[in-house]
Amino acid sequence: MDLTRGDMERVNQLILSKAGSDVQMIPEVANHLISSGGKRLRPMLTLASAVLFGYKGEGHVKLATSVEFMHTATLLHDDVVDESDLRRGKSTARMIWGNQASVLVGDFLLGQSFKMMVEVGSLEALDVLATAASVIAEGEVLQLSVAKNMETTEDDYLSVIRAKTAALFAAAAEVGPIIANADKAGRSAMRSYGMNLGYAFQLVDDALDYGGTAADLGKNVGDDFREGKITLPVILAYRRGTETERAFWKTAIEQGESSEENLEKALGLIKKYDALNDTIGRALHYGTIARDALAPLPASPLKSAMLEVIDFSIQRVN
Amino acid sequence: MDLTRGDMERVNQLILSKAGSDVQMIPEVANHLISSGGKRLRPMLTLASAVLFGYKGEGHVKLATSVEFMHTATLLHDDVVDESDLRRGKSTARMIWGNQASVLVGDFLLGQSFKMMVEVGSLEALDVLATAASVIAEGEVLQLSVAKNMETTEDDYLSVIRAKTAALFAAAAEVGPIIANADKAGRSAMRSYGMNLGYAFQLVDDALDYGGTAADLGKNVGDDFREGKITLPVILAYRRGTETERAFWKTAIEQGESSEENLEKALGLIKKYDALNDTIGRALHYGTIARDALAPLPASPLKSAMLEVIDFSIQRVN
Repeated sequence: MDLTRGDMERVNQLILSKAGSDVQMIPEVANHLISSGGKRLRPMLTLASAVLFGYKGEGHVKLATSVEFMHTATLLHDDVVDESDLRRGKSTARMIWGNQASVLVGDFLLGQSFKMMVEVGSLEALDVLATAASVIAEGEVLQLSVAKNMETTEDDYLSVIRAKTAALFAAAAEVGPIIANADKAGRSAMRSYGMNLGYAFQLVDDALDYGGTAADLGKNVGDDFREGKITLPVILAYRRGTETERAFWKTAIEQGESSEENLEKALGLIKKYDALNDTIGRALHYGTIARDALAPLPASPLKSAMLEVIDFSIQRVN
Repeated sequence: MDLTRGDMERVNQLILSKAGSDVQMIPEVANHLISSGGKRLRPMLTLASAVLFGYKGEGHVKLATSVEFMHTATLLHDDVVDESDLRRGKSTARMIWGNQASVLVGDFLLGQSFKMMVEVGSLEALDVLATAASVIAEGEVLQLSVAKNMETTEDDYLSVIRAKTAALFAAAAEVGPIIANADKAGRSAMRSYGMNLGYAFQLVDDALDYGGTAADLGKNVGDDFREGKITLPVILAYRRGTETERAFWKTAIEQGESSEENLEKALGLIKKYDALNDTIGRALHYGTIARDALAPLPASPLKSAMLEVIDFSIQRVN
C-alpha cells in the first residue's frame, strides 16, 4: 500500500528501536523474526485506518508498532506451543535460542507493546487492544483443546480463527478511527472490515498450506498436516468422506501418522471433495463482507487501496 | 495485614471471576496456581498504598488483581522456562497440563490484567505497570543469559532480582498513591518502599532455599541448586572459596552435577563462608531502606502494618 509508505518506514524504525535492550539476547531473538519478511499487514491496517479518518498526529505509528509487536509475541509463543521448526522458511527462534528465550522475548515485546499504547494515551484504543490480547490467548487455548480432534466442526474452527487471527485484524483497524475521533459508525465500519479481512486471510492461509508452493508461502505444503493441525480443508474433506476415509484422517491427524505418502493421500482427498475450492469460497464470503463494511465511506485513493488489500489477501491462492 | 482484609476479599473474588473463561482449560490451569496458597503480598501492597493515601474508589481492587495476575502469568512462564516440577509444594501447571497450556494461560492472564488496568482508567498507573511488565521480562532474559555461569557477580545478580522481583513490588506500591492523586513525594516514597522490600523479599527467598524447611517454603531445600540457579548464597560462597572449592561449584552448577551428596557439600561451603547470614545481612540493608522510605509519612495503623511487612518478609528465615 503505497499510500502509507512513509508512515510504514517510521513503523519499521520504531520496531527496531523498541525491540532494543541492553540484554543482548532480546534484540537478537526479536530481530530474527521481525526481519524475516512478514507482510506487516496488521500495522498497515492501523496506519491506513487512522489516515482514512483524517488523523494528523503521531500516535498511529506507535499503535501500528504495538500491533506488530503483539503479533510477533504471539508468533514466538505459537512456535513454542506448536513445537515448530520453521517459520517463513527460516529456523524458528526456539530452534536457535531455545523455548525459554522465545517465551521471555515474547513477554518482553508484549510489555513494550503496552508501553507504546500507553504513550499514545487513548484509553479506548488501549481497551480495544488489551481485549484483543486476551481474546487471542483464549483462542490459542481453545485451539489447544480442539487439537488433533477430528470431530472439530466448522463452527469450532471459525471460533478459533476469529480469536487467533480476526480479533487482532479487527483491533488493528478499529484503533485508527478511535484516535482520529471518528464517530461510532466509522469505528464499526473499520472493525468489521478488519474482522472479516482477518477471517478471509486465515482461511486462505490454511488453503495455501495444502496448495501453495514453498516460495509463495514461506513454508512447505503440508506443514499443518505434519503438525496435526485441524484446518478447514481437512474438516471439509473429513466430514464429506466415507467411513474408510475418515478412519484415514483419524490415523493421520490424531495419531500423527503424517508420512509423505499419507500427505499425498490427504491432498488427494482434499481434491476429491473440492475442499480447497470451498475453503476459498468461504474466504470470498468474508471478503465480501469486509468490502461492504467500507461501502458507506466516501471514495478515496486510500479506500480503494484498502479494498485492494482484500483482493490481494484472497488472490494469494490460485 | 488485617487492615486491608475486606478489600483483599474482593480481590480474591475478582481473581476468580477474571480467570474465568468459556474455554474450560483456562480456569482450571489458572486456579490451580491461584489457589495454591501464594502470600498475595503484591496485591496487598497496592491496596494498602492506595488506602494509605486516602483513596476512596474501587480502582485499587482492580489494580491489585491486575498485579496478582501479572505475577501469576510470570510464574506460569517461569515454570516453563525453568522446567520446574514443583511450585509451592504442588505439581506445576506444566506438569499437569503441559508447557503449551502454561504459556497460553499466562498470556491470557496478562491480557486480562491489562484489561482491568484500562478499566481503572489511570494512564499513569498503566504506564507504571506496563513498564514493570517489560522490565520483568527483560530481567528473565538477563537471568537466562547469566544462567549456570559461576562468574556472575553480585551486581549482575542484583540487576536480575531488581528486574524480576523488585520492579513489580515497586509498581504495586506506586500505583496506590497514583490513583489516590498523591503528590510526587508520596509516589516516590511508595515506589522506594516497594522496590527495596522486593529486594529484601527475594534475597530472603534465595537464602531460604539453602536453609529453610520444605513446610515453610512450599519447596525443598536445594531446589535452586538442583536447577543450577545462581543466587547470592552461591555467589558469595564461590567468590570466597579456594581454587578447589570453585572447581566444585563449577561442576555442580555449570555441569549440573547436583546429587544429594553435592548438595550436602554445597551447604557445607555456604556455612563455612557464612554466605547465608551475609545474604540475610543484605536483605536487612534493603529492609532498612524500605523502612526509611516510609519515614516522612505520618504515623498510622496502616503505616505500622506496612513496616511490619518488612519485618515479616525478612524474619521468615531464622
